[in-house]
Parts: sequence; structure tokens; C-alpha cells
Amino acid sequence: MRIDLEKIQADLSEKYERLKKAACVDAKSDNTAKALVDIVQFSLQFLKDCCAPTRLISKVPDKIYFSFSLRKGRPKFSRSVNKDLFSFNAERRLHHFLKGSLSDIPFNERQRLLYTTAMSYCCASDMLRTGDQKTPATFFECLIGHLFARSFGVNPRTQVEVLRLEEESSTLPTDFIFDIGPAKPKFHVPVKTSTRERVIQVFAHQRVLDGVHGFGKFTGILVCLTETKLDHKSKEVIEICVPRQWNLYQRFIAPMKRFYYFDVPKKYENLTKGDPPMAVLPFAKFFEEVPELISGK
Amino acid sequence: MRIDLEKIQADLSEKYERLKKAACVDAKSDNTAKALVDIVQFSLQFLKDCCAPTRLISKVPDKIYFSFSLRKGRPKFSRSVNKDLFSFNAERRLHHFLKGSLSDIPFNERQRLLYTTAMSYCCASDMLRTGDQKTPATFFECLIGHLFARSFGVNPRTQVEVLRLEEESSTLPTDFIFDIGPAKPKFHVPVKTSTRERVIQVFAHQRVLDGVHGFGKFTGILVCLTETKLDHKSKEVIEICVPRQWNLYQRFIAPMKRFYYFDVPKKYENLTKGDPPMAVLPFAKFFEEVPELISGK
Repeated sequence: MRIDLEKIQADLSEKYERLKKAACVDAKSDNTAKALVDIVQFSLQFLKDCCAPTRLISKVPDKIYFSFSLRKGRPKFSRSVNKDLFSFNAERRLHHFLKGSLSDIPFNERQRLLYTTAMSYCCASDMLRTGDQKTPATFFECLIGHLFARSFGVNPRTQVEVLRLEEESSTLPTDFIFDIGPAKPKFHVPVKTSTRERVIQVFAHQRVLDGVHGFGKFTGILVCLTETKLDHKSKEVIEICVPRQWNLYQRFIAPMKRFYYFDVPKKYENLTKGDPPMAVLPFAKFFEEVPELISGK
Repeated sequence: MRIDLEKIQADLSEKYERLKKAACVDAKSDNTAKALVDIVQFSLQFLKDCCAPTRLISKVPDKIYFSFSLRKGRPKFSRSVNKDLFSFNAERRLHHFLKGSLSDIPFNERQRLLYTTAMSYCCASDMLRTGDQKTPATFFECLIGHLFARSFGVNPRTQVEVLRLEEESSTLPTDFIFDIGPAKPKFHVPVKTSTRERVIQVFAHQRVLDGVHGFGKFTGILVCLTETKLDHKSKEVIEICVPRQWNLYQRFIAPMKRFYYFDVPKKYENLTKGDPPMAVLPFAKFFEEVPELISGK
């Protein structure tokens, strides 16, 4: 089979731009769902047709990782992919995005669908667009923005008005803010493909919101893809986690209500049994928790 | 004159490693001062012999910027340099570092000495080491670490013990911490060549220290080189400032006592007259303020 990588790259870029635009116009729309499914299908097809998995040396207990690489041409490797969570079979479930019915899918299947979806474009982009960190992050934001907007029934904003009492009103640029109406909690939803040392920003933004609007007005929900790091030379995968610091940030900067991961890091999972407990959960859980979150309990 | 850039680069790297080691062993020592003066003299000599200034398009009101570029060989430009603050003549004052007597120098001269010192290695490195962001940042940390350590008479630490009451004691990794003894304020001194959107970390760390140790125990002092950004294509220089956000962070995350800049951004300077006022000052001022800072007033 003759493969034209430049053509694939151009098509992928076009689909990426279409998704970005659709999500910007109306994140919760059918149009965004369609654009999302389209780019995911295209990315998975590319990974299936043109790439092969290479087993990596996983330094993460009980997790197996692989990396996609191009079958022909330059030797290029994607980010690390969790073997148990990635499945080409998940494609069969993509229509659930169009119907907005993810909660109907059994939990483990839902987890695989979400992880495979998030990783599809990221890995394709790793292979086709050299040194591009930005479009995978934006793709991930579009995905989360869409899923939250569907679940909450409102589109996100990306800044908050603060301090209306003052002469000039200020705005605080944030990740997503979902305002589901009066007498309901509002949601502060930072979205990151990984946090590393930047996680402190998440708590600090929550602190400003708590300070300006009062405690409990904004429910903080971090959504994160993974904390794995692949050393491209040694082919070793590690998870970079700083649980002790998370505990300090939760206690002394501002408490976050949920920490959702597509690939939950072991060391953060243990924080659920910490003091105070921090709710670090698989993102698939979100779809069951929506009513509870909206109720503000 | 035949110029061997590889030789110069190797010498510069060696001097850099020597400074780093000296600062690590004993930041306040004569040895560190010597290593500092040595690398600064070498960098200035290189800039004088091998480089020429190119005027940049300054979008910053009342400030003129230029960029160094190699006289021969590849067309490579340094970061932007403030014309009024950089002076090869400052070299005559370098012996003040050896004596630890910077406060003896008239204010404007002191400002130029400090700016020229900080920029010397940064610009030389821009020219000789492609894509290297790390060594200029580390050089700047060594410079600030040394000057604070001399002024306070103690070496810095880079982590703080927190929460000794608990089973396992935790530490918080920070920028510099100076502990000048019992019944004195301790100093939390984050050091950045520029802050951009990362400034929120500075306030967030201060918040954790205030929370864990009580208000007023740690005096927060940010030291920053500049907020300029050079567009290498258009040759335009801008200052990236978010004063509204600084105001929110100061009020709702944690108050910092001082913000010292080598090249004070106009928009942050105005915060000194803000509500609440924030002390954004030229770093040269620090050497006059040491007694007041130590007194905790």
C-alpha cells in the first residue's frame, strides 16, 4: 500500500480545525460531536494502517505501556499508551458521542472508549506533526469541553468576572467555567493533558474564585489525561507524581472537589484514602456523578 | 582577528559550571563572588569583541532596546537588552561584588552594574548555545542567591519543612528560603528571569507558607529580570504584563512584600500606586532596604 503521509497530515489538520471551530461556536452541539467522531475515526484508521505498537519498559507497577511508530519511513514514536485502556474495538462505541449517551456503556468499556478517543488524535499528531504540543492539548480541551457541556447542558466560558464592586470590573482568565444557573453550583474545570509541577495553578485559581465569590460557589474539577512520561531514548515510562504536595495544596491553597484522570496514576489514587481524602477518580466515573455534582452535595 | 567560537563556548561552559558549583557549595563565599565576576568579565569581553548591537523596534514606551548579534558567521540574535541599563563601563565596578559593597555605589550606577551583570551571561549564552533556556535561568539564580546570601549573611535552602506534627514530615520544594535566625522573619525568595503566566506559582507558594507557618512568618520577595519579549522575526520588543491579575493574586492568594525587577515593567511599576499598593521596585533598591527587611517592618 502506498501511503501519502503529507496528505494524511493535511487531512488531519483540516479535521482538527473543523473540530476547534465547532467547539468554539457551540461546544455542546451535534456538530461538535460529529467533528469529534470524525477526527477520532480518522486518527484511529491512520494508527491502524500506518503504525505498529512497540512495547515500552514500564516503570509503573501493574501497567503496561506501548508506543506507536510508523511502519515505514522515519523512526518516530508516539507518547506512551496504556495497553489495557487503549482498544481499537472502542471505535464501535463512538456513536455514543453522537447520541450523548456515554452513561449507558458499561464502566470498563466506557473507560476504554474515553481513553482511546483522547489518545487517538494525540498519538496521530505525535507521529505526523513534529514537536507539536499545542494541538493535542487543544484537542483534549475540545473533547472535555464537549462532554461537560453535554452533561451540564450549557457551554463553557473561559473567563470569570470578578469584583464588580470596583470602578473597573476585572476578569480572571481561567480554564472552563460552567454556569448552570441560579442557586446551583458553578463549575471551575481546569483541563490538562498532564499537570507535573504546574498543578499548583489549578489550586491557586480555585483559591481566587473561593476568595472573590465565597466558599462553595465554584466547584473545582480537574480533568487530566495522564501523568506518564516517556524517555524516548531508554524507552522507559514513568509516572511523575507529587502526592505530598497535592495534599498541601488541597489543605492550604484551596480544596478541589474532583480529580478525574483518563489513566489514573497509582500514587494519586492513594490520595482517596489520604487525610483529607482527595477524590482522584477515573474520568469514566464523571458520567455517573453528574446528578450528584449538580445537586451540590 | 580570528575568532574560535567553539573555544569561547567551551570556556564559557567551564566558567558556568564553576559558578554553579561554587554557589552550591557556599553561595555567600568569596569563591562564588570570584566565579561570578570571572564569568561576567568573560561574557562582556565576548560581547565586545565578537558582537554588535542591533536596534530593535521597542513597543515599550520610553524604553529603547537592542539585541546583540555575532559580527561574523550565523545571523543569531540575543534577547532584548535595555539600552539605558546596559553599559560596558559597568565592568569597572565589578570589584564591588568581590568586596560585597554594592550599597556604596550611587543608585543609577548600581542599577546599570546589576543589569549589565545579569545580561552578560544571558546574552553570551543566547549567542553561543542554541535553544538553551536553562543555563541563563540558573546563572540568574546563582547571582541572586549570592547577593541575598551576602546581604543576609546566610546561605539559602531550596525546600521548607512543613507539618512536623504529622507522622511523616513533608517538605515543600521552593525557590530560595533564607532563615536568618530565631525571632527574625524568614524570607521566601522566588527568582525568575521572567514570570508571564507562571507568576501565580509565586503567590501560591507564599500561600502555603502562610498557611502552614502562620501569617508574617515568611516574607515573600520576588526577584525578576525583565518581562520583555522579543519577536525574532519582526524585531519588535513588548512587555508582557497582567497587572489586574497580580492585584487579584496579591489580595486573594497571598501578599508578597516586594517585587524586585532588574528592568521594571511600566505596568507593574504602576501597581505601587494601586489598591492595595504592591511594592514593585528596581532590584538596586534592595541593597538599601536590607536593614528594614530584616527588622520585619
